[in-house]
Amino acid sequence: MSSAAGSSITVPNLLEGEKDTVLSVLGGIYEHSSWVAEAFYESKIANCGADNATTATGSSGNLENVRHLFDAMSAIVDDASQEQKMELLRAHPDLAAKVEKLKTLTKESQEEQGRADLDTLTDEERTKFLTLNESYRTKFGFPFILAVRNASKHTVLAAVEGRIGNSAEVEFAAALAQVHKIAWMRLLTAIDTPDPTGFLTCHVLDTANGCPAANMRVQLHRLSPPETAGLVAEFVTNDDGRLPGGPGLKGKDFQVGVYEWTFFVGDYFARKGTYISGTPFLDEVPIRFGIDDPTEHYHVPLLVSPWGFSTYRGS
Amino acid sequence: MSSAAGSSITVPNLLEGEKDTVLSVLGGIYEHSSWVAEAFYESKIANCGADNATTATGSSGNLENVRHLFDAMSAIVDDASQEQKMELLRAHPDLAAKVEKLKTLTKESQEEQGRADLDTLTDEERTKFLTLNESYRTKFGFPFILAVRNASKHTVLAAVEGRIGNSAEVEFAAALAQVHKIAWMRLLTAIDTPDPTGFLTCHVLDTANGCPAANMRVQLHRLSPPETAGLVAEFVTNDDGRLPGGPGLKGKDFQVGVYEWTFFVGDYFARKGTYISGTPFLDEVPIRFGIDDPTEHYHVPLLVSPWGFSTYRGS
Amino acid sequence: MSSAAGSSITVPNLLEGEKDTVLSVLGGIYEHSSWVAEAFYESKIANCGADNATTATGSSGNLENVRHLFDAMSAIVDDASQEQKMELLRAHPDLAAKVEKLKTLTKESQEEQGRADLDTLTDEERTKFLTLNESYRTKFGFPFILAVRNASKHTVLAAVEGRIGNSAEVEFAAALAQVHKIAWMRLLTAIDTPDPTGFLTCHVLDTANGCPAANMRVQLHRLSPPETAGLVAEFVTNDDGRLPGGPGLKGKDFQVGVYEWTFFVGDYFARKGTYISGTPFLDEVPIRFGIDDPTEHYHVPLLVSPWGFSTYRGS
Amino acid sequence: MSSAAGSSITVPNLLEGEKDTVLSVLGGIYEHSSWVAEAFYESKIANCGADNATTATGSSGNLENVRHLFDAMSAIVDDASQEQKMELLRAHPDLAAKVEKLKTLTKESQEEQGRADLDTLTDEERTKFLTLNESYRTKFGFPFILAVRNASKHTVLAAVEGRIGNSAEVEFAAALAQVHKIAWMRLLTAIDTPDPTGFLTCHVLDTANGCPAANMRVQLHRLSPPETAGLVAEFVTNDDGRLPGGPGLKGKDFQVGVYEWTFFVGDYFARKGTYISGTPFLDEVPIRFGIDDPTEHYHVPLLVSPWGFSTYRGS
Repeated sequence: MSSAAGSSITVPNLLEGEKDTVLSVLGGIYEHSSWVAEAFYESKIANCGADNATTATGSSGNLENVRHLFDAMSAIVDDASQEQKMELLRAHPDLAAKVEKLKTLTKESQEEQGRADLDTLTDEERTKFLTLNESYRTKFGFPFILAVRNASKHTVLAAVEGRIGNSAEVEFAAALAQVHKIAWMRLLTAIDTPDPTGFLTCHVLDTANGCPAANMRVQLHRLSPPETAGLVAEFVTNDDGRLPGGPGLKGKDFQVGVYEWTFFVGDYFARKGTYISGTPFLDEVPIRFGIDDPTEHYHVPLLVSPWGFSTYRGS
Repeated sequence: MSSAAGSSITVPNLLEGEKDTVLSVLGGIYEHSSWVAEAFYESKIANCGADNATTATGSSGNLENVRHLFDAMSAIVDDASQEQKMELLRAHPDLAAKVEKLKTLTKESQEEQGRADLDTLTDEERTKFLTLNESYRTKFGFPFILAVRNASKHTVLAAVEGRIGNSAEVEFAAALAQVHKIAWMRLLTAIDTPDPTGFLTCHVLDTANGCPAANMRVQLHRLSPPETAGLVAEFVTNDDGRLPGGPGLKGKDFQVGVYEWTFFVGDYFARKGTYISGTPFLDEVPIRFGIDDPTEHYHVPLLVSPWGFSTYRGS
Repeated sequence: MSSAAGSSITVPNLLEGEKDTVLSVLGGIYEHSSWVAEAFYESKIANCGADNATTATGSSGNLENVRHLFDAMSAIVDDASQEQKMELLRAHPDLAAKVEKLKTLTKESQEEQGRADLDTLTDEERTKFLTLNESYRTKFGFPFILAVRNASKHTVLAAVEGRIGNSAEVEFAAALAQVHKIAWMRLLTAIDTPDPTGFLTCHVLDTANGCPAANMRVQLHRLSPPETAGLVAEFVTNDDGRLPGGPGLKGKDFQVGVYEWTFFVGDYFARKGTYISGTPFLDEVPIRFGIDDPTEHYHVPLLVSPWGFSTYRGS
Repeated sequence: MSSAAGSSITVPNLLEGEKDTVLSVLGGIYEHSSWVAEAFYESKIANCGADNATTATGSSGNLENVRHLFDAMSAIVDDASQEQKMELLRAHPDLAAKVEKLKTLTKESQEEQGRADLDTLTDEERTKFLTLNESYRTKFGFPFILAVRNASKHTVLAAVEGRIGNSAEVEFAAALAQVHKIAWMRLLTAIDTPDPTGFLTCHVLDTANGCPAANMRVQLHRLSPPETAGLVAEFVTNDDGRLPGGPGLKGKDFQVGVYEWTFFVGDYFARKGTYISGTPFLDEVPIRFGIDDPTEHYHVPLLVSPWGFSTYRGS
């Protein structure tokens, strides 16, 4: 029942686990704060009897997937006292230390922060960052926390610049939101989700002609993570401007990552006779977007004329 | 005064040229129809006296640049009889012949069509294309004409599929529009435009916060032509969400081609504190667009929230 | 089987009718060109035997509704010779005559043009219109034709100004398109469509938060025709941002006319806590749109943040 | 130097005023918290000497308009202790009391809340509101505060529903933001702004043709306040799709209120020949928006094709 290093465990298996297993899997979800995992174990698993995990699931009504697990753990944090929350914030590593050496971080923090390109900071940027970081800690009393995997140095600098102006109340809430987000990301790694419920759909509307863009070629590429990057699939839209055969991505393929649609808009309008040109204003239209939650529906449509387009996260 | 192969000539120099020069430069602009260049020479240059080309320019009021030149030549075509126009259409090479061998094309046609990837047609696509092409010629009485440089086979097929359903009147007009477009593209190559008047601008609006997106990093890459492809410039938007220092592209750099903005939207919203996430829905936003007319202003803005964006050719 | 003045007839009843009935109903659909109705009768009804109209329907495979009827009649026009088409164009009344007196128009033309506010032309506008109209007829050889019911004088002037610059070929095609459109509008009046297949749907997306706009109040008003103008219904969007209970308009209520959604965007964002202000930039958002074809699906969604919105004809 | 009831005073006059005058004008800006006005007087005016108010202005560097005044006063609140802020929140009247009688409100609160249509609450709505309001006060320890003039009952209910779920920290910050907003609205009424610096501009882009929408008729109506409601002006866009002659609204006419553009899109596209129809999908397009800050630039453009449009607060 123990989980080998690097492997992951399903929610049902976790719920059937011994306390040791549960704590080893969930103890580091909230940074240096295994009390969250312990409280979760006590309230959700222990009191249901060791031999009856399904009752635990049943009694909670919905401890069936990673989202439910997150909801239960985050509720424990939200119900904690102001002092406990502050302690949780303070338990996070200071990015400044990271700039020197990678030592006091939990293994999850190491992995996340290690990938950021903070090592490429110029001296000027390093000074700017350390100064901002110090001001932040002095003003708020806890370290700067950012829930972004593989963030560029630009993103980290932008975020600390943006948040340092917040009032104490607003930043306390913002930092807690980051902590929850980090927990969510760690859960997605720690827990095996055998059958992601999320999926990706598309719809192309021709706003020059007021109709679905039928018969348009569309490609989907995964840009990251690098291990599975590449062309995912090629489609031709149906009469309603949608992908034939349902979602463009679902199940195991619906991975957290960065994706890009390529819409062959020039060909489409050439076929419509609406517009042709030597070098069309719009020909191959890329739409780059991130999938962050493997349990949700991502609808990423295109509204397009020969002279402009829109996209958005739809439903 | 003669123009070496491959070189080009300015409009003022052309207008001062002998008839031979004018015809050698302009004779192939309209396919196998040097009568257009001759009529242009007679009406615009010859009758002004060989020693007074500037009067020619002056009397026309506006023969100063390549756009004026095009307007004058295309007006000659538009004023021609229906029979002359039909003859002009019929003077164009049949793409079917091209699929076999490259022979009867003018040198301009060779170059343009040679670059298309028609050679990569599968047998099925080849059959489909030849059938469509034959039907087109039978229906309309002239070959299929498409004014697209470097068009993919998908574009060519899409265009012939789209236009074959037109009525005779509509397609006659559509084919003439293609012919004019080809002439325009050829003029841009044949004529030296020492100081393009066109330029490229940008503007970023934050639609989540209802304000200009200040302090956003933006890159501009040229994707084509391949000879000059690469990073053109990097900017940081000013307080009004615009590029500091004026146009992002102008003068000699404002070349016909395919370009791509990259907007670092994720960093911007991180700084605003509006939204942060493990994998943001929008992080680096590419906007790919073509510049087709070196004499025009291209305004290509971005309207963006953390969950969607729009672009369009503005002014 | 004859149709009383002002009443209308269903397609099945029409197809069972005597030749007289068919001609009296369809004879004026194409202006002063009853030959279209006659050709339709001969090809679609007569040769099926007087006692077996259902065979006629069956044999055509699809003469079941007003759209099929229009397709059959318009195909007859499209297949006619260039001379017949020109004659059809010339059979249309000249708007100039209308400016003096309402005499030679068919009863359908009278009704349509009588409603336009051409009588309110100022002297200057009248002169401008008559001059443009005369130039148009001289250039193209047929009168200016515009398929717009209740058009304002601004619309009529705009249209003639816009089209007078067309080439002969393009305008010939454009005028024929208007003639078909007029025929379609007349058919919708002449034929009883007991159960319109069209319907109206809506969807509200919150682009500031990247989610459906649930629980938003929405009203639908009909602005025209005046006889049935008023509040049609009030809705509250469901969890997917759509109207609960299906289409907002369908069946008999799905009338050709002008409509307006009112979205209570201010209340929605107040509930979200996203944005509140003394006088919000967006509070009640009206979206005004026309329904022109009672056989089609109109999807008219709203994409909205506190600082901007989009709409379009979707699917 | 005293200000007659109902009249207002300019910023320079206020700064030259006696303490009594300053307190009578500013004392009620923050509800039942004249200490803010007193602190403002002491820090900004008193210590500059009674005879040298311009020095006061000068020394602050920017106490020149109502925005500067607000910045100075709101900074005093922001720098106050958590206890003082909580007291300020608690000093606000409870809307529940308002539902019974209008008594303990400052005169400004009476006016603002008196206009809301809370009197039209049904019994069910009244019960819902009182219950929510009581829960809110119990949870957060201060009354529900909403900075919306003339809010409908729907807006008030929506807002309390939306905010009752906030954490204590977030709602504390949200309530303070409302308090600042109320102060801003009260300042705009209390202070005479002889020459508003804000203005309203417009730009119409034709996204079907990729160009400015030139020669489009546009009307501007003021919908509220009712005293000055009506047609403000009618424009015809210039070649760049903008209003000729500069802003559509500026100076004294640039009042806080609700406005509506009407774009005559149908006529425009009729002139372009892009699209004409019996009942166009888009004909007269209204865009309704609020102006909340008389010191800012409001750019409210339209991007439009025959089948859809967008607007946003631009710059």
